[in-house]
Amino acid sequence: MSKKTIIVFSGDYDRVMAAFIIANGAAAMDDEVTMFFTFWGLSALRKQPNPGAPAAAKSGLQKVFSGMLPKHPEKLGLSKFNFAGAGRMMMKKVMKSENVMTVSELLETAQEQGIKMIACTMSMDVLGIGKEELIDGIEYAGVATYLGEADEANVNLFI
Amino acid sequence: MSKKTIIVFSGDYDRVMAAFIIANGAAAMDDEVTMFFTFWGLSALRKQPNPGAPAAAKSGLQKVFSGMLPKHPEKLGLSKFNFAGAGRMMMKKVMKSENVMTVSELLETAQEQGIKMIACTMSMDVLGIGKEELIDGIEYAGVATYLGEADEANVNLFI
Amino acid sequence: MSKKTIIVFSGDYDRVMAAFIIANGAAAMDDEVTMFFTFWGLSALRKQPNPGAPAAAKSGLQKVFSGMLPKHPEKLGLSKFNFAGAGRMMMKKVMKSENVMTVSELLETAQEQGIKMIACTMSMDVLGIGKEELIDGIEYAGVATYLGEADEANVNLFI
Repeated sequence: MSKKTIIVFSGDYDRVMAAFIIANGAAAMDDEVTMFFTFWGLSALRKQPNPGAPAAAKSGLQKVFSGMLPKHPEKLGLSKFNFAGAGRMMMKKVMKSENVMTVSELLETAQEQGIKMIACTMSMDVLGIGKEELIDGIEYAGVATYLGEADEANVNLFI
Repeated sequence: MSKKTIIVFSGDYDRVMAAFIIANGAAAMDDEVTMFFTFWGLSALRKQPNPGAPAAAKSGLQKVFSGMLPKHPEKLGLSKFNFAGAGRMMMKKVMKSENVMTVSELLETAQEQGIKMIACTMSMDVLGIGKEELIDGIEYAGVATYLGEADEANVNLFI
Repeated sequence: MSKKTIIVFSGDYDRVMAAFIIANGAAAMDDEVTMFFTFWGLSALRKQPNPGAPAAAKSGLQKVFSGMLPKHPEKLGLSKFNFAGAGRMMMKKVMKSENVMTVSELLETAQEQGIKMIACTMSMDVLGIGKEELIDGIEYAGVATYLGEADEANVNLFI
């Protein structure tokens, strides 16, 4: 049993999927896993917006950035051949027929397996993402926390 | 002598080139090196299609994906300034005059140096790539094999 | 106190920023940090051109490549939502209001903290970038030097 950390910087569906597959694989082998979501990777942690909830306090520019970001992991684009979402839809169809889990399912498994998921607070400020927009059960921290975790790990990836 | 692993996720010519340069450099220094090719990175392992060979059994969507993927490492695009292949051609011209090896040459060297190359079977299923489309002398495995190799290595990169 | 290495392959403003934030964070925790700039990442080390200086000897194709590259770190594009620089400008405005440092400021801090910055000489040849175009106080080396540094480090990232 050892420890692994993964920085999820990318918000591409395929890269986020790769991050979760590695993380879940390691957790299934009894490794301790920490995923640190930063910049575009934060999109993977967004929850379905609740129309009745009060809007978060954001500056105009923060609204622009957070407004452009995918509202939900299944809305992330592919890094290649996305074609405005058609590529992702096609890939998900193949994944289903090949019994490959979607990012939402991988995320759920990651939470069930006790993978520690940390949202980078500095990136949240820059992109104008509030805590109320992210899923429950995650932690909030900065680079010092990441480095502390990485020091204890034997595999550290930046995706 | 130590061990290194590199996940080749990207299918960009420049990134695949960087992966092979690091891998070959490490092997030249007597390191044991494992490269794990997944998603778009699988394109780097494709061999020239044999027109006489029977076509692989693929679903319609798998045909679409694998049909869009570059047929050969030298057909990979640059991550920047590709301009429908013109950028790659220009870069290869400069590389030649500066005695820098192409991806095909780097791959050949990697095989000569005994670098272990693994194709990710799950990605092959999703992208609809069959074993008969990939070069000889490689292995086929999944994330558990990667993690086993990474646990033994002192440098693990995701490219 | 331990050692970290970061390969800065990407020339995207957001990815270079992430690289420097991790590097500076580690240096602030008394880690020894080496950053190895290669390919598009070399743009982060470019200095403002001096109009009076003699032009570097470059082939025609090298001139084309180096001419397309950003002339200064603050001219790097975002990996997403760049919109010909408008996205980067917007992000920098939010960063300022949230007291987040720009890449230029992060670079300055990195130099003050004694972070070792190495420019990859092979990439310089391929992209046609001369030493006179890069900032002072950096080192020049190839993959063997990187591997030597990585062997001594406990965290190695490819960005």
